[in-house]
Amino acid sequence: MHYQLYYWTGIQGRGEFVRLALEDAGADYADVARDHGDEVLQPFLDGAEAGARPFAPPFLKAGRLVIAQVANILHFLGPQLGLVPEAESRRLEALQLQLTIADLVTEIHDSHHPIASAAYYEDQKAAARQRAADLRRNRLPKFLGHFEQVLAQAGGLHALRSHSYVDLSLFQIVRGLDYAYPKAMDALAPKIPHLRALEARIAERPNIAAYLASERRLAFNTQGIFRHYPELDGGIED
Amino acid sequence: MHYQLYYWTGIQGRGEFVRLALEDAGADYADVARDHGDEVLQPFLDGAEAGARPFAPPFLKAGRLVIAQVANILHFLGPQLGLVPEAESRRLEALQLQLTIADLVTEIHDSHHPIASAAYYEDQKAAARQRAADLRRNRLPKFLGHFEQVLAQAGGLHALRSHSYVDLSLFQIVRGLDYAYPKAMDALAPKIPHLRALEARIAERPNIAAYLASERRLAFNTQGIFRHYPELDGGIED
Repeated sequence: MHYQLYYWTGIQGRGEFVRLALEDAGADYADVARDHGDEVLQPFLDGAEAGARPFAPPFLKAGRLVIAQVANILHFLGPQLGLVPEAESRRLEALQLQLTIADLVTEIHDSHHPIASAAYYEDQKAAARQRAADLRRNRLPKFLGHFEQVLAQAGGLHALRSHSYVDLSLFQIVRGLDYAYPKAMDALAPKIPHLRALEARIAERPNIAAYLASERRLAFNTQGIFRHYPELDGGIED
Repeated sequence: MHYQLYYWTGIQGRGEFVRLALEDAGADYADVARDHGDEVLQPFLDGAEAGARPFAPPFLKAGRLVIAQVANILHFLGPQLGLVPEAESRRLEALQLQLTIADLVTEIHDSHHPIASAAYYEDQKAAARQRAADLRRNRLPKFLGHFEQVLAQAGGLHALRSHSYVDLSLFQIVRGLDYAYPKAMDALAPKIPHLRALEARIAERPNIAAYLASERRLAFNTQGIFRHYPELDGGIED
């Protein structure tokens, strides 16, 4: 099947979780806005295209289906790309983990935009300092600690005992946090050995290594979900 | 099948979206923490119970399965309770809408807790005023406008052209916002006629009417997701 991914150009953003799955599987896909500009997104958001109406990018077009929300897209793609175990109970487990990853992604975004997502960072810096401190001290240890325990309980190598889209998303979480919060991630490193090792293994998968070395992989920057503002980074202790 | 719902006592919270589905379908379920206390939750969160490890309540036990994350639970329950269309593409559409509802729920929560979910409201009141203003002026019109358009495009009566768990969750969103942000909801009313009519129809469904009149339906309060703080409410215009 040919897939069309729709996501804002210029950032990795939430689209990257889908992109990593498509790349890892060697799927036949087009990154439509990168080829034709962000204006291709609007007709879908306006309800002028057939299929389910997305609230926001990313969304995926697969035949006549339009599918939005990262966890939903990956739930759909998983079986087609061989990126989730086949049993229904295991698909639910993958979706559960992906939804917890989505919650963390929102918290990471809100650490630099705690007041208004449409306002400038510079206009909410004071609140961002406070929220980022809470992210570093409380939320990252809690979320990453959870994923670490999930990995440990599943044998250490995979969130679901075999390779899945969840592992690819956890890779992206670790890479993104390494960029945005390097000091906090240094401080957390001793507590998340399985997550760190997973990140290293994913980076060495041939399709992922090729993707990361390609121009298709944008650099992290201060327009996306993961933003490096030195004033927001720091340790994890009170 | 007998279901066991696990959620904090004392609040409707995120558990209520699951509860409404179980009640509407007349399902055989136990609300375990209400019967036995909040301490029944911890062994699951600690990974001491079999099944997928939840990051947070609510979670549902169904036979040997443990399923967490509201949208995941409803995705699982939908076919069993007859609360989602059967076609796979329609199940994905339901999940997509439920995930957008989940995003809105997080934004509603964060309007009173923009800095730290574990800190007191009173210690983040100034930031909450700013975030709540953005919620009223920008985010509620955007989210509720989206759901209104989805309803209109589907014929006006249901988000998915037939009754589903999504309709039940939209009911809860409208009820919760009516409690928390009555002035903003008054101002928005002319823009969301289909949503308001849906809320009224859901309230009249026999099982829902009976549930709302029962002691099982807790009152909204200032411990849950939807909190009424008069200082956060107001109009939707700049």
